[in-house]
Amino acid sequence: MSAAPAKSRPSPEAERLSTLRGLMNEHQAEAVLVSSPANRRYYSGFKAQDGLIDESSGLLLVTRREQFLLTDSRYTEAALAEAPLFTVKTCRRGPGAELAGLGALKKVKTIAFEPEYLSVASLDRLCEALPEHDFEPLPFSLDGPRAAKSPEEIKLVVKALAITEAAVGALWQNMVPGQTEAEAALFLDTEFRRLGADGPSFETIVASGPNAALPHAVPGPKKIKAGDTVVIDCGARYQGYCADITRTKIMGPPKKWQAEIYAVVKEAQRLAIAAIAPGVPANAVDKIARDYIASRGFGEFFGHGLGHGVGLFIHEAPSLSPRNVGPLQPGEIITVEPGVYLPGKGGVRLEQLVLVTEKGRRVLNHNLDFYDF
Amino acid sequence: MSAAPAKSRPSPEAERLSTLRGLMNEHQAEAVLVSSPANRRYYSGFKAQDGLIDESSGLLLVTRREQFLLTDSRYTEAALAEAPLFTVKTCRRGPGAELAGLGALKKVKTIAFEPEYLSVASLDRLCEALPEHDFEPLPFSLDGPRAAKSPEEIKLVVKALAITEAAVGALWQNMVPGQTEAEAALFLDTEFRRLGADGPSFETIVASGPNAALPHAVPGPKKIKAGDTVVIDCGARYQGYCADITRTKIMGPPKKWQAEIYAVVKEAQRLAIAAIAPGVPANAVDKIARDYIASRGFGEFFGHGLGHGVGLFIHEAPSLSPRNVGPLQPGEIITVEPGVYLPGKGGVRLEQLVLVTEKGRRVLNHNLDFYDF
Repeated sequence: MSAAPAKSRPSPEAERLSTLRGLMNEHQAEAVLVSSPANRRYYSGFKAQDGLIDESSGLLLVTRREQFLLTDSRYTEAALAEAPLFTVKTCRRGPGAELAGLGALKKVKTIAFEPEYLSVASLDRLCEALPEHDFEPLPFSLDGPRAAKSPEEIKLVVKALAITEAAVGALWQNMVPGQTEAEAALFLDTEFRRLGADGPSFETIVASGPNAALPHAVPGPKKIKAGDTVVIDCGARYQGYCADITRTKIMGPPKKWQAEIYAVVKEAQRLAIAAIAPGVPANAVDKIARDYIASRGFGEFFGHGLGHGVGLFIHEAPSLSPRNVGPLQPGEIITVEPGVYLPGKGGVRLEQLVLVTEKGRRVLNHNLDFYDF
Repeated sequence: MSAAPAKSRPSPEAERLSTLRGLMNEHQAEAVLVSSPANRRYYSGFKAQDGLIDESSGLLLVTRREQFLLTDSRYTEAALAEAPLFTVKTCRRGPGAELAGLGALKKVKTIAFEPEYLSVASLDRLCEALPEHDFEPLPFSLDGPRAAKSPEEIKLVVKALAITEAAVGALWQNMVPGQTEAEAALFLDTEFRRLGADGPSFETIVASGPNAALPHAVPGPKKIKAGDTVVIDCGARYQGYCADITRTKIMGPPKKWQAEIYAVVKEAQRLAIAAIAPGVPANAVDKIARDYIASRGFGEFFGHGLGHGVGLFIHEAPSLSPRNVGPLQPGEIITVEPGVYLPGKGGVRLEQLVLVTEKGRRVLNHNLDFYDF
């Protein structure tokens, strides 16, 4: 007699589809069209990431009983391999024509779509191809279930972060005046991949001197000079999951203004992190850092949000911004990245990755290489 | 008496704005909202490329007399430096609120937008913020003027291509069985930047063995083996301009099927390139390659379009596809990239960059490293 077969756990995608169908039932949605790359990957496993606002390279259609992945012939094989729970349809005349021929839509009247991730032109084409159907914005968010990470997802982000810290640590040891921003960025990107990452999770920022006052500067042929502040904002991607950290190095003994804004940013970050806990509104955390920076006289020099969720995509829910009143929840991984930018002089930004836990928070970074002023 | 000041040539952006205003007059458009990253950069010089379908990080508004760049505080300094012809507005409560306060829109009734590059949600927000205005899809294409490249733009693409070919040539000399796809891709990406490129113009593809049958395979830990076909599709970006080439290497003496599909793809490419000339419909060029491949019995194994325009962005007008009936015009730079993909076995794709000239065509590649079968 053979042993009873081991009860296998459903795949993450099966669990996610089940969550999605729960939301569909709750909101009486008959069919959902998924067009954002993040949600496409999360719910189906399909990795192709381009075609962000072109509906031709990857759309999911989920009805109450069936699920389809519509793609074009470039991606058919990848879709079959990566999204085994989905019926893959290769579109030759666009997804509208393919959807129009689907038996699964025969009894469906309303198709809900993601309004942030469908272009006006794409919606027009779909309406034209399916004149008998109504298209309506989704009555709930598909991003919601992605915000709280599973233990497996947290492990992948921690691994991506460990790679990132190792790369930044290596750069830290080697960075000298005379090196260009572009060389430093190339060093990081190469280290990421040598250490097993898929690549960078976004374009690596190395901004020196006055460039450090530009929160999203592009590294160029500019040489890093003695006395500069150098903002390094980067992250490795590991098995699809992103890390994101920022460090600011001062090339030599800090000048008074450098030490001052560094200390202000660091304290703002400490105060904000200490406030993170389940149930706390995201904008309350933002406000703590923002108010502290303003109280020290630098309010006008911190213009961006305090942070954002990180997961399969580098920016996802929840955002830590003045506008997000939603409560934080366990499993969310968020950046805390205050900055002070003095035009023409330079800037300081510091960023940690923080996991919201059942009782409070856990800083995921190991390498707390802060200056102490 | 001082010498007369040298008559300075208008900047490319000034010329492009003037072309745009010509189109606006012709189509009686009062105001145009530019939301695609390609057009934002082309018409303004502003380089920030993210926020593809989020209107918050970069929108242009061009009226008959004025032009504005709306961004958020992360990008204000970069916008001021990169887009000197534009009035930069930093949006604190979103672009809708900023537009609603603009004097330049007081006498404007209709604002034309890019329907392919504005999400349904963004349009809803704009309509809500500007209830007195009508929003309508642009009655002409903003991409059109970008298709034909100036001599300066052609030089930048040629430089990007030269870097790409040098990197592929170096890989070609060093690629051996046992190397992984990811290692080969990292080699290329590192070479691009060492040779002065901004980076890769898209995610480098190195696909070996059965993976070579996936036109957009992601390089992984898979080892390249003797006997594999290896498809390498990559391109450097140089000062914003993209190159794009594909080569297929056979790791050892070609098997019969490898030699056969290589020869079919190469001949399809030769026939298609020979047909390129101003006035020829783009889909006629596609058809020549497609018909030839079908005549050799591989029609079902070539599912993607034959090629696409390349410039500031890796995919732009004109597309060489069965659907594009538009005539080719001088100055366009297009890829010609037929492929045959045999599921489970492997595939061959070959790609050249071709400039449409006044009288015909010029292949921009220097390195014609084809096999001869």
